[in-house]
Parts: sequence; structure tokens; C-alpha cells
Amino acid sequence: MTRQIKLGAFLPGGGQHVAAWRHPDQPVDGATSFDFHKQLAQTAERGLFDAYFLADGLAVAFGGGMEGGNARVAGFEPVTLFSALAPLTQNLGFIATASTTYEEPYNTARKFASLDLISDGRAGWNVVTTASEAAAHNFNLDQQHPHADRYSRAAEFVDVVKKLWESFEDDAFIRDKDSGKFFHSDRVHHTDHQGEHFKVRGPLNVSRSPQGHPVIVQAGQSEDGRALAAATSEVIFTAHQKLDTAQEFYRDIKARAAAFGRNPDHVLVMPGVAPFVGRTEEEAREKYDRLTALILPEDGIALLNQLTGGTLDLNGHDLDGPLPVAPPTEGMKSRQDLLRRIADENNFTIRQLYQWVATARGHYTIVSTPEQIVDELEHWFHNEGADGFNILPPWVPTALDDFVDLVIPELQRRGLFRTAYEGKTLRDNLGLPFPVNRWNAARQTAPLSAHAAE
Amino acid sequence: MTRQIKLGAFLPGGGQHVAAWRHPDQPVDGATSFDFHKQLAQTAERGLFDAYFLADGLAVAFGGGMEGGNARVAGFEPVTLFSALAPLTQNLGFIATASTTYEEPYNTARKFASLDLISDGRAGWNVVTTASEAAAHNFNLDQQHPHADRYSRAAEFVDVVKKLWESFEDDAFIRDKDSGKFFHSDRVHHTDHQGEHFKVRGPLNVSRSPQGHPVIVQAGQSEDGRALAAATSEVIFTAHQKLDTAQEFYRDIKARAAAFGRNPDHVLVMPGVAPFVGRTEEEAREKYDRLTALILPEDGIALLNQLTGGTLDLNGHDLDGPLPVAPPTEGMKSRQDLLRRIADENNFTIRQLYQWVATARGHYTIVSTPEQIVDELEHWFHNEGADGFNILPPWVPTALDDFVDLVIPELQRRGLFRTAYEGKTLRDNLGLPFPVNRWNAARQTAPLSAHAAE
Repeated sequence: MTRQIKLGAFLPGGGQHVAAWRHPDQPVDGATSFDFHKQLAQTAERGLFDAYFLADGLAVAFGGGMEGGNARVAGFEPVTLFSALAPLTQNLGFIATASTTYEEPYNTARKFASLDLISDGRAGWNVVTTASEAAAHNFNLDQQHPHADRYSRAAEFVDVVKKLWESFEDDAFIRDKDSGKFFHSDRVHHTDHQGEHFKVRGPLNVSRSPQGHPVIVQAGQSEDGRALAAATSEVIFTAHQKLDTAQEFYRDIKARAAAFGRNPDHVLVMPGVAPFVGRTEEEAREKYDRLTALILPEDGIALLNQLTGGTLDLNGHDLDGPLPVAPPTEGMKSRQDLLRRIADENNFTIRQLYQWVATARGHYTIVSTPEQIVDELEHWFHNEGADGFNILPPWVPTALDDFVDLVIPELQRRGLFRTAYEGKTLRDNLGLPFPVNRWNAARQTAPLSAHAAE
Repeated sequence: MTRQIKLGAFLPGGGQHVAAWRHPDQPVDGATSFDFHKQLAQTAERGLFDAYFLADGLAVAFGGGMEGGNARVAGFEPVTLFSALAPLTQNLGFIATASTTYEEPYNTARKFASLDLISDGRAGWNVVTTASEAAAHNFNLDQQHPHADRYSRAAEFVDVVKKLWESFEDDAFIRDKDSGKFFHSDRVHHTDHQGEHFKVRGPLNVSRSPQGHPVIVQAGQSEDGRALAAATSEVIFTAHQKLDTAQEFYRDIKARAAAFGRNPDHVLVMPGVAPFVGRTEEEAREKYDRLTALILPEDGIALLNQLTGGTLDLNGHDLDGPLPVAPPTEGMKSRQDLLRRIADENNFTIRQLYQWVATARGHYTIVSTPEQIVDELEHWFHNEGADGFNILPPWVPTALDDFVDLVIPELQRRGLFRTAYEGKTLRDNLGLPFPVNRWNAARQTAPLSAHAAE
């Protein structure tokens, strides 16, 4: 089958752009309204998106802006939200973010396996290490663990979760009322993991879904992040302003995946794109200017601070002067480097920088017509820049509607995007293989012995 | 208003009785079927139950029975499941169990606050300390923490969660598009908890629901459990075979609550009741005998072992002989004592004991007509034995249907139970007060200062 573009939809109910909540079309309580998230999910499904994606944080995202301009201070925990949306949709996938830094593998494996069962195989887990001092303060710490430690824990965490997801072989259940045999005891397996960070005996008390287990997603861009993603991820979100850095990333990830013995086609690279869609260029530009005009300066500064995990305090600096040099960080390294590069390449003042990143926090912003947007996506897609894109409508719902009503049809016209869902599970639609349970594969003779103490 | 009985429905999709899954009426894959749980929720709502309740465990519940007779080896994580059921119902509450032993307060506060928002104020949290060696082995431990340590952690955990639930005052949000002010910064509060077990700065990144925060539920019966429940719980589940012990418990809890300065009417005591309902006594008895006949001996032994947290290994003992003396335990103290009392009072053999507890694991089993069942509930309700009951249909769905179609109408005929939901939230229906946010109450002048590092 012809290779086609995959599409994720990044749809926080509060909107993507820092001033999105002030947009006339956006419900002012979108971030905390379940009904509004339901509307967004159903629109994404109408657009045949592969998945609804949500980021997450384990602290209130004040940024430096304590004066009340930030609409992202409160929302929903993503797995809980997606679980509620799953029965209200049929084909849309749900990729939720969860932290390897402040959860336990057994709990994380369990909630995602539950979501995967509830949705009949439409769940994905965006694996993150939480980089923020504010989150550390919510989990008994005075300061967060160093970057390398977080990634060491993350790598082992993903390993444990994947082992737990193999607790039940796909044919473990007999469910024979006559004999009273419910399962094959030799097809349920202890995990017996012992590592540097975790000791987990298993098995998990949730069985596998129609897609085996949730799709593993990551977005780390640092050296540690790339290594982890190439080793374990099936979808990788990434942020690039230009094709050349996207290509460097794409080729690097594919090469690393191959070096791990993986099929590079089973590692989908999906850069973020924030589209302002207009029927004319002028209309698109008007939409961009309209949102930019709504940014309060204190919220712009707070945003830059928040994006760097609180390492870039710009209070007191001249907004129309250059970006100061920031101290080294254990926080969000890759995002801080990206901001610096954007400022340098464009010779941006602080104000110009926050106006630029206000839309999509470092992701590629396109202000144009459907045809030109699709030209650009097609160019990246055919030139080792992307296997698909994570679409970040700057505000909701009308910027999402624009994409679904204007851009998707153009993608379909060119044969670049599906006209109907390929299958029922997220893996079916993304074209990712069913993950064979290694116990099924080997039918290893490692039955559970009778552990009377359990 | 006349005091009426409150009703919870304990509805594991795999059924309550150890052999429930073998019952001809029960779907053999009920435990892992989302659609079946949806059916149960909608039936409970048709019966005007206050809440759907689910227990939880953090390990596969093998018992000692590794030979495959146990249908409870796999299921859903309760909060994830209830979140999916919430939008498919209108008035039914959802009380999910979560462990203070193996979660972190920030994560627990968050998922329950999310469920509470998604359901528009219908969530409850059943607070447990997880007592099982198997669970400890899934969370990096060689053996579980001592009973007293678990309760010390639990008390502080509940305290932290309640503080986190007060992060946002009820009028914290301005959401004024014109001025760009989204919230009052002096109505969002740091938690600033520092205790023996936890250090949590807050605020939580989820706001309050229409019922303020989830209803706090507990089921501990030991000395530590009673103290914690009387201090913090609004609903208390309990297991009693006879009115006299139920009364002792009821009076003790109410007195303890009053001693903590609480209104005893705001602490609802709800014993469990497992009803076999027949239009005649004979029909009820037939239903009981039919299920009992389906118990395999190895599953009966496994059940007794599981109920005592793995401390009562009966393999090799004569099933028609007496219950042996068990060693002291750090596990499920109160349940082990209860089993011993049942065996002693009835002069039960091992087989007779597991046949008796197979229905409802120590809860009160009634095998009778609707009129006699209501006589009994009414007697307990009017004589300081209960404010309501947690109904445990021995199998599903038809034993639940029996209760809804035969017992509920009799309760209503006597004016003992609602004929329509009183309100939209779980608190409205249980008659529990809206928990005033202490910050709202005091309008204390402790605004957040500008923390640039966040």
C-alpha cells in the first residue's frame, strides 16, 4: 500500500496558543469542560486523525505569571479524561502522557492497559521524564533528580512496563464453565524484574487488548532522549522549525533504531505543526495577527520561563532587547537550546521571541492556505523529514475545524491521507505491527509454580 | 426529611461469589468486558443506587489456587473504568478504591479530582492500605510494611489529598477575556505540607467539582482502621454477620466521630449484604444451593488464603476437619479475626467455612424473599446497625436485576428508599454536606507570592 501521512491532534481544551483562551471562538472554560473535550475528540475523529494527544505536567503551570493570565493552571489528568472519551468515539486513538519520574511502573502499566481494554485497543503512552522543580516539590523532593538519572530510571521503567504488559499470553484464558478452569496457569507469567531502580514480581492484573499493548510514544530530543526513543518508541513527536533539522533528526532516529535491530519503518517520526489556515494568505495572516495581539507581556515572559523549566527568568529585562544568556540546566535541555536557536537565527528580541513561540512553543508554525500547507507537509513527508505530523491547532475549536474542513480534503485529494480508517485499533491505523508476546512466541516452559504465600 | 436508607452496589464484573463466573446467567468474560460493566452501571442507576463501588488490589489475586479456577485474575483499574462509565450515566455515584500504600498523594488527588469533574461531582474515594505480600513484591519491596506504618502513612496521605483538593477556591476563576485575567492569584493556594511521610508543595493542577471534592470512604475494621475512618471518612463500609456486632461498630464509629468534633450524621455506616432473592423462600434457597454446588475445593481453599492476605495456608489439611490456628499477621487482621469467629460460632469445617464465605467474603448473606430481606434491612436501619447497605449481588447481572426489580420496590413501598434521585452529585444523594474550602471560609490573606523559579 502507498505510504500515507499519519496525523496526531494535540488538543488541550484550553488551546495551544498562550492567548487562545481569549480568542472569541474558544469557550473560556474549555480546559476544565468535559463536554468541550468530547466535542474536540469527535471533531478529530470526523477528520480521521490517528490519535488525540495530550501532554501533561505534575504541577500547576504558573510559569512566572502569578497574576492570573495563564489558562493552563487547571485541567484533567489525561488517562482519566481519555478513558471517558473512549466510549464516545469508535476509531480515534488516545495518546496520554505519563511520567516515569513520579509514578510506579505497576500503576502506570495498569492504567494504560485498562484504557487500552476500555477503548478496544486505541491507547498510546507518551513516555516522559518530568523536568520541573515545581513537580519535584509535589513529590517529596527539594530539587529534581539530575537529567541522566531521570533517563536511566525512564529506560528501566519502560522495560518493566512492557514486561508487565506480557503477563497474560493472548490465549491464556480458557473460561470453561463446565470444568471450572478459567485460565491456563502456564500462560500467566511472573515479571521477576530486578534492576537498579525497580523490583517488580508481577504479573500485572490486567490482560492484553486487541492491539496487544498500548503504542509507545516519546518526544525526547536530547542525546539521552533520542537513545531511549530509538530503543523503545513506536512514535516520536519532535519540534523543528525547518526541514534540515527535521531531516537530521529523522535520519538519526531511523539509524539508531536500525542499530538496535529494529525495523525503522516501525518508528514513526512526527514533527509538530501549528497551522493558521486561511482560504487566502491574507485571511491566514489575519488569524495569526488576531491571536498575537491578545498576548499580555507578562504572560509572554511567563511562557518563556515555563518552557525552560523555570531556568530563564526574564522579569526586569527589556522586552525589546536581546535574550540574555541562561545558566546551564538539569531541566528541559532540548527546549532551551531550541529557544536560543530561534532567537539567534531570527535576531529576535524577547518580545518577538515570545510572540513567535506563543503559538506552539517551538513547533513549526505555518500561516497559509490549505494548498500551501499541504505542499509543505508533502515536501517533508517525501524527503525524510516526517512520517506524519502532530497537528497543534493554535486555538480550539475553530482552528481544528479549519484543518479538518480545509486541509484534510486537500491531503486526501493528493492521496496523502486516508479517506476511511484502516482498522479498529491505533496500531491498525498507524500501520504498526502487533507486538508478539514473547511468552506466546517461545511457548517457554516457565509455568508459575504454586506460591501458597500469595 | 425522613431518614432513608442509602445503597451502594458492589459490582465486580466477574461477580462476587467465588464461583459466580460459572453461573449460567453470567457472561464468562464479565471481568474484562467494558460493555458488561456498562450494563451493570445502567442497571444500578435504574435501581436508584447511590453509587457503584469497586474494590481493588495491586497484584493478581491468585489466592493459593494457581490451577486456573479464579476468575478474578484480571480486570480494570477502577478509576479508569469509572471514568469511562461516568458519561454513560447521569446520577449514579462512583466509589473507586485506591491505595495509600503504593501511590503518591499528588497522583491520587489528581485522578480522583479528574473523575469528580468528568462526572460532575459523582466520585468517591475508598481509602485503603494495601495488605498483601504479593502487592509489596510489585512495588520494590521484599515484604510489606507493618500494619501500624501503613496506617500512619494512610492518615497523612488522606490529609495531604484533602489539602490538595482545596488548592483552588470555588471562586478562584475570573476567566475574563477582555482583561486577560484568568484567575485570582490570591485564591489559588500552595499546600505546603511537610510531614513524616510526605512533602508536598502544591497546588494541585485540577480544580474542584460541583460537589467540592470526592466523598471519602473507608472500610477498615481494626483499631487503626476505625480511628482513621472516624477521623476522616464520610462513608464507612463494614462486614457483619449479626446485628449485635454491627451495632457495636456503628455506635463506636459515631462516638469516635463525635469525639473528633464531627457531626455523626455525616459519617454513614454501611454494612455489606449479599442477597439471594426469591419470590419464595424455596426459590431463594435454590439459588443459593445452585451457586454453592459450583465451588471447586481448590478454589475454596484459595479463597480463604486470599482473604487472609496469604497467611492461612490450608493446602494439605482435611477439608472436613476444623480450621487450624493461624500465625499472627501484619496483613488483613480484621478479616482473619472475622473468619475465625464465623468458624467458631458455627462450628464449621474448612469446607463449610469456604462455602459460607464464598458468597460474600464475610459479609452478611441473606437467602430469602423481598419482604423478609427488607424486614431485616429495616430492623438494622432503625436500630443503630446501619445508615445504609452496600449490596453485593452474588453473581451478575441477574442477582442485581433481582434486587432492583424485587427488593427496591418493597423498600420504596415502605418509604425506606428514594423514588427519584435527590440531586445530581453523590453528596446530594447521600445527604452529605458540601465540604467548604477552608480558604474560602477564612478568606485568609495568604496569597501566592511570585515564584519566578516555577
